Amino acid sequence: MRVMGVDPGLTRCGVGVVEGAPGRRLHLVHVSVVRTDPDDDVALRLLGIETGIEALVDELRPDAVAVERVFSQHNVRTVMGTAQAAGVAMLVAARRGLPVALHTPSEAKAAVTGSGRADKAQVTRMVTRLLSLDEAPRPADAADALALAICHVWRGGARQRLAAAQRSRIEEAARVERARLAARSRGGTVK
Amino acid sequence: MRVMGVDPGLTRCGVGVVEGAPGRRLHLVHVSVVRTDPDDDVALRLLGIETGIEALVDELRPDAVAVERVFSQHNVRTVMGTAQAAGVAMLVAARRGLPVALHTPSEAKAAVTGSGRADKAQVTRMVTRLLSLDEAPRPADAADALALAICHVWRGGARQRLAAAQRSRIEEAARVERARLAARSRGGTVK
Repeated sequence: MRVMGVDPGLTRCGVGVVEGAPGRRLHLVHVSVVRTDPDDDVALRLLGIETGIEALVDELRPDAVAVERVFSQHNVRTVMGTAQAAGVAMLVAARRGLPVALHTPSEAKAAVTGSGRADKAQVTRMVTRLLSLDEAPRPADAADALALAICHVWRGGARQRLAAAQRSRIEEAARVERARLAARSRGGTVK
Repeated sequence: MRVMGVDPGLTRCGVGVVEGAPGRRLHLVHVSVVRTDPDDDVALRLLGIETGIEALVDELRPDAVAVERVFSQHNVRTVMGTAQAAGVAMLVAARRGLPVALHTPSEAKAAVTGSGRADKAQVTRMVTRLLSLDEAPRPADAADALALAICHVWRGGARQRLAAAQRSRIEEAARVERARLAARSRGGTVK
């Protein structure tokens, strides 16, 4: 399972892609930051983020996108831009038909360090260790995006299996129903 | 000048298109609400808003898009979705190369009623009068989108003339610079 984590921001939008499965070793696929110019109009900056994330999605073909959930309690001065950058990431994923998950910062921290209140250095250390890297991933502020992706591989994995099981039950029910209708239209009967 | 006003929301996104110029009569071109299902994932809903607004932009070809500025003091429960819907509207406009303006609710209210604290009924009455309509525009909750568009025709008009003047100065400077370079590459001189 290949997951793209997005740590949204208007000036710096962290993107980390990780491959793995619960209980298996994790691999780093990609890490970068999509930047936009603070002097540009917000509309143009959102377009820049869309272009950047879309190019990465098309190149790296993740199976799912995990975006940090933005709260209104965050830094009030920047929260609107952060929410909009997150929205753009979600939109790009939805347009490509990819499942989108939102995880809170504490969920991501807890997933990689065991504590929802871990500091930046701890998160970076654990991300480095979990991905078996020789040194901390660069750019440094993209570690949160990798933590989100790892969080989703572990949490989302379970959820995705549940969703897949449910989907296959629905598909099975639909198959039975189609068979019933087909049999009826042929004048036969299906118990 | 044809302006599309967008009153952003995840469940109901008001869109109003108005034609006019400062000091001239205003005409209603279009009014509607783009709706998305509250039971759907936010990512899918943002995709629905994008599809809806993009279709309207392509059909109605506005010269500019005016979006309501979202503040974090708004309803905290819905503010993130509202900010993201606004972001999607801005993104669609930017992708089409259209200028985007943000106006606050008070600016829009003040533009049509003379008071930034006018209530919904006053705004609707003035929008109806300014657009010379026989009755209030429907859907009723799209009146704010029309007020935004009207606000932009009046305020944006002045700003756009300024921007156009500045652009023509820049273009003139670029023209002179190109002529100088062309003359230099021919070995001539331009004072």
